Parts: sequence; structure tokens; C-alpha cells
Amino acid sequence: MLIIKAITDWKKFRKSIPPENSMGFVPTMGALHEGHLSLVDKSVQENDLTVASIFVNPSQFNDPSDLEKYPRDFNSDAQLLESRGVDSVFFPAEEEMYPNDYRYRITENEKSKIMEGAHRPGHFDGVLTVVMKLLNLVNPTRIYFGEKDYQQLMLIRDMVSSFFLDVKIVGCPTIRENDGLALSSRNSLLTMGERAKAPVFSKALHSRKSAGNIKLELTDSGFDVDYIDDHYGRRFGAIKLGNVRLIDNVKL
Amino acid sequence: MLIIKAITDWKKFRKSIPPENSMGFVPTMGALHEGHLSLVDKSVQENDLTVASIFVNPSQFNDPSDLEKYPRDFNSDAQLLESRGVDSVFFPAEEEMYPNDYRYRITENEKSKIMEGAHRPGHFDGVLTVVMKLLNLVNPTRIYFGEKDYQQLMLIRDMVSSFFLDVKIVGCPTIRENDGLALSSRNSLLTMGERAKAPVFSKALHSRKSAGNIKLELTDSGFDVDYIDDHYGRRFGAIKLGNVRLIDNVKL
Repeated sequence: MLIIKAITDWKKFRKSIPPENSMGFVPTMGALHEGHLSLVDKSVQENDLTVASIFVNPSQFNDPSDLEKYPRDFNSDAQLLESRGVDSVFFPAEEEMYPNDYRYRITENEKSKIMEGAHRPGHFDGVLTVVMKLLNLVNPTRIYFGEKDYQQLMLIRDMVSSFFLDVKIVGCPTIRENDGLALSSRNSLLTMGERAKAPVFSKALHSRKSAGNIKLELTDSGFDVDYIDDHYGRRFGAIKLGNVRLIDNVKL
Repeated sequence: MLIIKAITDWKKFRKSIPPENSMGFVPTMGALHEGHLSLVDKSVQENDLTVASIFVNPSQFNDPSDLEKYPRDFNSDAQLLESRGVDSVFFPAEEEMYPNDYRYRITENEKSKIMEGAHRPGHFDGVLTVVMKLLNLVNPTRIYFGEKDYQQLMLIRDMVSSFFLDVKIVGCPTIRENDGLALSSRNSLLTMGERAKAPVFSKALHSRKSAGNIKLELTDSGFDVDYIDDHYGRRFGAIKLGNVRLIDNVKL
């Protein structure tokens, strides 16, 4: 597996791939788990080559302490990617990804303003901006995203159509622990006690109660609830357990 | 010369061009004059194929009456382009260029906030957004812009590096009437009296006086001055003559 850091090296690698070879792309912020790896597996099945990126994108963190404590372990991530058949990992430096700092950004003014957008101001600007940069550098045939970040997936879909980007977006189902907790890099930051309590969140989302009742129930159980909201035929939620913020969504 | 309206037709045309052929692209809002045609000439010299677009981009007009009265004459424009050797004109409809209305836009938060950006709120968001759309659809080797819109040229240059777009930007000198007035589609909207007075603006910019003195002088001569500003080793100005707003800039 090739590990490529410099953008000039990346461009050379990209040019070396014959245009008739399909390329699948899994963008990540590292701290990989089986959720990410399910995207890798799908990409390996569907494409001649699979590429992953690892880049903890500062512009999408509205909270500096969240950025600071975000888990990072490149060596373990690289081993996992290699074991699942990734051909090449793009691991760029922040200065290279933001050659004009953060002067240019992509904004969306409607669907990015609710739920995660309302609770994390500027978050989706950062996500859309970095995905546009990565898409232009990687130029994949297909790009893979998890449905756990469903609002993000929806926003990227519409960005691709708005800017006429030539890529197929593949959304993949959320992967869960046996007790129902959605896999997330942030789960590793939970204390044992918080981890034991966390599945109450996904169980509540899957229940047949109203969004309002779920919010009350979770608050009563000691969760700090950002929102429980129904949109687009799905139920979305975001909660805090101690210092860790978790999101999830289920089909209604 | 091919005239292509539908985006699906455009994509088919683009795919039919062998990758080894270089393509020059001149994006315009129509109402063509020798300024535009100097870009076309340069592109025809430098590329295997030259493509122009005609699209009066609504999102870059902060003033609805300016959009309404903007001169439009497709047939005359198409004749001019054909006579100068353009191979294909892309003439898309607004609904097709904005499939998600104007929900997604590109913003810049520093160099777009002075001069034209300060006097035309949202103008550069519209320009950057439509140029990104057009670049993705046309995928040219080189794209041509006039230095008359110098701030725009600078902002597009940095957008291309920020988003890693694979295109060479070619800036071309401002073309002027014999009396010094910079060519502009808006010149055709001037009354005879305004047209006679207009060259005082470019003469003042070319003089060795300070920006402040030029502003005073133009105001005394009956111009409504938006700004006279020095930046990036150039002197920039924007004035109104009656209902027509004109901009210009010169190297210091």
C-alpha cells in the first residue's frame, strides 16, 4: 500500500492511473473502526482501485477542544486499511490542504442550517470545503460515505449536483455494536460508565415514541440532548454524555 | 460553430474531445466587444479548440435593475464568436445552471470584501460560484479573463489554487477605446453626453495624482464616485455616470 503525503506526489500518482481504471475513494479523519472499513470493503468490491484519505480537517471543528482531543493513530489506521485491500492512502498536511488559509469556503444556506448545522456553527462549511478539495485532488469514480452522518451525506450529494462534479456518491448503512450503539471514532473517548449507558440513545431513537417523548426520556436518563428531530423520513438525534458528543439517525 | 444549450448535450460534446486536445475557454455574459474578442483571439492562438460560454449569471447581480437592463443579443454575439474562430458556444439556461437554486455558493472572506465586494454585496460569491460550475462542466486546459475585472481575476486565481482545480488562468490586458475608455458591455447603456464625458475617468486613473485627489476631481466633474483605491500595485476605480456604473484599473 502506498502512503502519500505531498500533494505533488499525489498528483503524480493520480496521473499514473489509466483513465479506464475505476477508482473508489473513502475520505476519513482516521481513528478508523468497522464503519469506515465497511466503506472500504464496498469500494474494493466495486472498483479497480481503492484510495483512502486520512485528514483531521480543522475547518469543520467548531470547538477547538474537540479538535484537540480527536483520536489520532496513523500507524494503526494504515495497518487496517492495508489489511482490507486499500491501494493507496493520501495523508496530506494541513498547510498543503489550505494554501490560502481558509479564505475560500463552500456554504449552503438551507439544509445545513438545521440539526448539526444549528448546533455546530460552520461545521458543514468546513465539511463541504474539504470534500470539494479532496474530490478535485483524487478525482474518483465513486466516493463512499456512511449514513451515520446522514445530513452530511445529503449535503454532499446536493453539492455534487450543484457544481456538476463527475462522481458517483455511495451511501452505506450505519454499522452498530451488538448493543445498538452506532460506531464512531468518538466512542473511544467515553468512560466505562458512559459507554455502558450509551446504547440507551440508539434504543430510544429506534423506539416508536414521538421525538418529543424521546427527548424527555433521554434527558431524564441523564443525557444532555442537543436535538431529536424528524426530517426526510428519518429520525435524527445528537446528545452529550459527559464531554463526548454523539449523533445517530434511523429510518422512520 | 456548435451552439449547445442543454447540459447533457454539453457533456456529450465534452466527452467527444480527445484528452490530448487542449481546450481554451472564454466565459462571458454576452454583449460582446473587442475586449472579449481579444480573449478569444488569444485562446485560438494557444489551444487546439476554443469554447466560449454566454450566460448572464443572475447570482452576481446585487441590483435587480442592473440584471434587467444588462444588454443581451445572442445572435450578434454568436456571429462575432464564429468570425473569430470559436469552435463551440455553451449557452445554458438558468434553471440548468442552478439545479438547487442558489443554496450552494463559494465565498471568500478577505480580498472579496474590498472595492467591488464592498460596493456590490454578494457579487463575488456569484462570480466564484458560477466560475466553479463552468470550470467543472467545461474542464478546459486554459481559461481567459480580462484585467479590466482585476479583482475578479485575482479572486479566481486563488480559488483555483484553494480547490486544486486543474486549469491554467490567463489574464489579458484591458482593451480601450481611442479616447482611453475601457471597453465594457455597459458602455452601450451610456447616453451620448455620458459617453462623451466617460474618458475623463480613465484619464484621471492614469494621472500621477493621489487616489484622494482623483476622487475629488471626478466628483467635481459630476461623476458619482464609489471608490478610488490603491491595492496590489494597481489603482482601482468605480464610478457612476447617470444610471451606468463603470470600473477600471491601471498599473501604478
